[in-house]
Amino acid sequence: MAALARASRYVFRWNKQVDPTFALSTRSMASKTPVGFVGLGNMGSPMATNLLKNGYPVIATDVFPGSCKEIQDLGAHVVDSPADVADKSDRIITMLPSSPDVIDVFTGPSGILKKVKKGTLLIDSSTIDPAVSKEMSVAAEKMGAVFMDAPVSGGVGAASLAKLTFMVGGPEEEFNAAQELLSCMGANVVYCGQVGTGQAVKLCNNMLLAIGMIGTAETMNLGIRLGLDPKLLAKILNMSSGRCWSSDTYNPVPGVMEGVPSANNYQGGFVTTLMAKDLGLAQNTATSTKTPIPLGSLAHQIYRVMGSRGYANKDFSSVFQFLREEEGQ
Amino acid sequence: MAALARASRYVFRWNKQVDPTFALSTRSMASKTPVGFVGLGNMGSPMATNLLKNGYPVIATDVFPGSCKEIQDLGAHVVDSPADVADKSDRIITMLPSSPDVIDVFTGPSGILKKVKKGTLLIDSSTIDPAVSKEMSVAAEKMGAVFMDAPVSGGVGAASLAKLTFMVGGPEEEFNAAQELLSCMGANVVYCGQVGTGQAVKLCNNMLLAIGMIGTAETMNLGIRLGLDPKLLAKILNMSSGRCWSSDTYNPVPGVMEGVPSANNYQGGFVTTLMAKDLGLAQNTATSTKTPIPLGSLAHQIYRVMGSRGYANKDFSSVFQFLREEEGQ
Amino acid sequence: MAALARASRYVFRWNKQVDPTFALSTRSMASKTPVGFVGLGNMGSPMATNLLKNGYPVIATDVFPGSCKEIQDLGAHVVDSPADVADKSDRIITMLPSSPDVIDVFTGPSGILKKVKKGTLLIDSSTIDPAVSKEMSVAAEKMGAVFMDAPVSGGVGAASLAKLTFMVGGPEEEFNAAQELLSCMGANVVYCGQVGTGQAVKLCNNMLLAIGMIGTAETMNLGIRLGLDPKLLAKILNMSSGRCWSSDTYNPVPGVMEGVPSANNYQGGFVTTLMAKDLGLAQNTATSTKTPIPLGSLAHQIYRVMGSRGYANKDFSSVFQFLREEEGQ
Amino acid sequence: MAALARASRYVFRWNKQVDPTFALSTRSMASKTPVGFVGLGNMGSPMATNLLKNGYPVIATDVFPGSCKEIQDLGAHVVDSPADVADKSDRIITMLPSSPDVIDVFTGPSGILKKVKKGTLLIDSSTIDPAVSKEMSVAAEKMGAVFMDAPVSGGVGAASLAKLTFMVGGPEEEFNAAQELLSCMGANVVYCGQVGTGQAVKLCNNMLLAIGMIGTAETMNLGIRLGLDPKLLAKILNMSSGRCWSSDTYNPVPGVMEGVPSANNYQGGFVTTLMAKDLGLAQNTATSTKTPIPLGSLAHQIYRVMGSRGYANKDFSSVFQFLREEEGQ
Repeated sequence: MAALARASRYVFRWNKQVDPTFALSTRSMASKTPVGFVGLGNMGSPMATNLLKNGYPVIATDVFPGSCKEIQDLGAHVVDSPADVADKSDRIITMLPSSPDVIDVFTGPSGILKKVKKGTLLIDSSTIDPAVSKEMSVAAEKMGAVFMDAPVSGGVGAASLAKLTFMVGGPEEEFNAAQELLSCMGANVVYCGQVGTGQAVKLCNNMLLAIGMIGTAETMNLGIRLGLDPKLLAKILNMSSGRCWSSDTYNPVPGVMEGVPSANNYQGGFVTTLMAKDLGLAQNTATSTKTPIPLGSLAHQIYRVMGSRGYANKDFSSVFQFLREEEGQ
Repeated sequence: MAALARASRYVFRWNKQVDPTFALSTRSMASKTPVGFVGLGNMGSPMATNLLKNGYPVIATDVFPGSCKEIQDLGAHVVDSPADVADKSDRIITMLPSSPDVIDVFTGPSGILKKVKKGTLLIDSSTIDPAVSKEMSVAAEKMGAVFMDAPVSGGVGAASLAKLTFMVGGPEEEFNAAQELLSCMGANVVYCGQVGTGQAVKLCNNMLLAIGMIGTAETMNLGIRLGLDPKLLAKILNMSSGRCWSSDTYNPVPGVMEGVPSANNYQGGFVTTLMAKDLGLAQNTATSTKTPIPLGSLAHQIYRVMGSRGYANKDFSSVFQFLREEEGQ
Repeated sequence: MAALARASRYVFRWNKQVDPTFALSTRSMASKTPVGFVGLGNMGSPMATNLLKNGYPVIATDVFPGSCKEIQDLGAHVVDSPADVADKSDRIITMLPSSPDVIDVFTGPSGILKKVKKGTLLIDSSTIDPAVSKEMSVAAEKMGAVFMDAPVSGGVGAASLAKLTFMVGGPEEEFNAAQELLSCMGANVVYCGQVGTGQAVKLCNNMLLAIGMIGTAETMNLGIRLGLDPKLLAKILNMSSGRCWSSDTYNPVPGVMEGVPSANNYQGGFVTTLMAKDLGLAQNTATSTKTPIPLGSLAHQIYRVMGSRGYANKDFSSVFQFLREEEGQ
Repeated sequence: MAALARASRYVFRWNKQVDPTFALSTRSMASKTPVGFVGLGNMGSPMATNLLKNGYPVIATDVFPGSCKEIQDLGAHVVDSPADVADKSDRIITMLPSSPDVIDVFTGPSGILKKVKKGTLLIDSSTIDPAVSKEMSVAAEKMGAVFMDAPVSGGVGAASLAKLTFMVGGPEEEFNAAQELLSCMGANVVYCGQVGTGQAVKLCNNMLLAIGMIGTAETMNLGIRLGLDPKLLAKILNMSSGRCWSSDTYNPVPGVMEGVPSANNYQGGFVTTLMAKDLGLAQNTATSTKTPIPLGSLAHQIYRVMGSRGYANKDFSSVFQFLREEEGQ
């Protein structure tokens, strides 16, 4: 596998097939030394828990004392600040809500970079602007540390079950070290290229996902209005060139599939607020790179409007309901 | 098979598995009686040729004498008008460019309905407004004939190779009779429901296809601008929720896949003019049914603009090129 | 004035300055002979009433007996069908909800053209597809009659007060005859060119109006979110290049102006359903002429969605409320 | 006038009616003390020149030596860095291309804030993100200086003729001091509210302008396709509810008006690249405030695509040409 990695420009390891020989040869992998963790929210908390379950001592912190207490009860060692986490560990995972939080946790007055040790591996799983990932990488490099971006796909359920997908950007020679930890929390760990590309891949995927979902919703709605049976329409689309993940795996029309949010009044899943956040980041990167994204941009606006009209906390497939005629009209 | 048709609401027969016993028992199926054909354009001509190849006598007509001459040389019997076709056959296939042509060929002064015989099966493979299909069906019924809409998916190449897909709307009890003929010209014949639903399914599919294609093009372009390798990006999208037919089967970025129009300077394939036509029909049906189609509508506009900017005769995946920065900028 | 009409290609008479000398010289203008009226709905009823007030005998019909009774009580002579109206008058005004109604009233089995007299002037004030206006014109011409399209701008209030604006298409030499009647029902009568151009102008105006209104709504909303005082923002926009009718005459933000629907919970005015109808017609004409209208098309979709989300009967400026964050979020 | 300013929440002085009595009573207004100027590009150079013409000594700097040389020849005193400008003047105007430039000129290692004196008035005429204006204001305040944002409307021509419009945000009590200088360079100086509101007003105006321009272009194009005379259509729109600045003052259709870019092959005016930049900033502020701007967002995308298709350096009204059918098609 190491040979493969050298042979092709991009290393692609979808499943957690870690070569143990190779894995043993790098920093702190031989024994389970402490892993730092900053950000114990809905996602971070189960992720840190999975590290504990895999036998890693965890040094954790969060701005909410309640979250700290919880992870402490599960065996983590809680400290006061990101700087203190950096003081006590040479591998740190961060999972934060937004770009400003990441900037603060790394470069703020009690930030990681205040006490980071040379050679420390910093893995940021937040979904943020790729440009911020690059800035953090530069700042970390000045301190002799390595920064990698590793945003996730999958929600709270996947985080609990260690079924997340990580999209990883950063120096290729550090990928194995990152993978050792990430594979405790996820089912797939994908190497995407230099720092920032993890974020880029995630934003690209979610933008295309949003477009496909709204497109599927309006297509299914139009078909129903034209007298088609929704199950039959979905079946034919899925055998034809209209096929997409939103039509064949996560259909937004109630009654077409089971086990998806549309079968459960759009509860659970990936809420429109979070989709709107990701589309906002995609829009920002498109604007700063002067890239036209007409459909991505309109998808962004549609999820913004939905957030204002009562759909903020419903799964993003509820766009089908949003576009549909209201009851009683 | 008839039992199956009655048991489920929708008969779904994707491959040409015609039950020969059953087929022999219905109208004019026992021996190969003449089949009428109106419309010998780029699509109609190879379709009629395939009927001849399958041993059916063909009674044909077209407004262009050249097209008539060609099919005559292949063994068809050419007559002067659609009315004359109706006079000499009890199964007629029409393949015409637009709704007004269909109206004229059926209800015009020399139209099919002027001389149609009771019990004649009329199969219209044109892509038109489903409302017009319904009107033709009503007009045919008054004359004791049966009208079915059966638009195709697949281009000139598929027509020549008898690899088209037919989406069929009309009385379910006539589906077998239609399928006998259509399966000589296509690989898949799908029953969609009452008259007009063949058109509805086709328009729905192509609208979602257009949305997925533009979405894929802008996503790939954004990823490339953000420093991603296009092949790697396509690979990850295709394993993730961004996956769609345009990303995994017909990728619009040169170099990502072989054997698709993007690998051949967007020659061949499905030209933007035809996609714009189908999106215009989808828009019309959405407007008349008061259905919101925000992305479908924008996709329509984008293909309209492309048609004005030199992309009229390129494959519809050339939207990637249209959105991209021009050389030398 | 006749000289002016010849001098410039287009006659433009915004105010009702009818030259009495000239007016007296044409068909049935010297004395007030009966005027036919078909379509006594919310708009047609006050329009016909204004003809009565101006001393014209009115021969009327409508599908609803109640509407007929009402106009009869005001002095009109009610007959059974459009054909009967044509039998008893040589000038007929029609005011109908949609293209199919117009087709039926003119060319149906009891339609105007069944009994129309040579030289009759047919003025259609319905808002319909310009292509249908042209068809009706051709059909009328075959019977020796003259058809003009004269859609209106202004609502029920303007109809009652005879303050409508008529946009008139048809033979220029008949404009004076049309103007004599229309100026009883409206304040402005504008000649737009050959038949169909009245409709074309109306659809163009309303499309740009819809774009300007949504644009104003989102701009005002953005400004408010950025901390601007809405009155000040409107004032500066109105002195700058952002100025439009929706910002300076019909501002959609409550509190900015008085006497507009936004000051009255978006009651009255021009309801979103009617705007969506006009945008649908604009979309149809754009599609059939292969004209790209990206913003017009999106405006159409936004009013479609609003119709599905409880805004159907609010003034079209309520798009400000639709885009805004809901109370309590 | 001072009383008026106190009486209403917003001071609104559209024309340069400076009360001389009041003007003489504030900081450094009595005599013409030196004014600093950073950024001598296409806009900054004529602006600084106008200060010189009005008798103000100018202390200037720019990264391009050529620009420095030019203003020096006109009588300005050139120094090495923004810090040196701050050292030698207590009123400084900055005119820079983008947010990062502003951040660097103010807070960089040779930035203004390194040597700024207490009480200095800092007026930034760059068009940037309002959030950056606020940040600069906070940083300036820490040094005892006052920061105001004063972006301009009007291009190079207006800058040369001192006909710019300034939209000013900042402490109201400093508005007169700012106005003294700005009125040497512009015809209108408008107070918009607290710091950042100058930018906000400019972005709002330009977003609505872009929407109105594209809307006008597609409406005029549609009308022409429907057979309308463009001059007549413009005339009627301008008397109706479709009226906007782009239709009545800056019509994008060649032949409708004189003295506008459309009459001169779209040379001069406000180029699409700059419009795309402003729309990008509007999009960023909308995203960060979670405000839906569907049409503004699509307008942004259209100008982005135009930038990629050869329209980068044409006036933004060239969208009419972009949407139109190409010659020879």
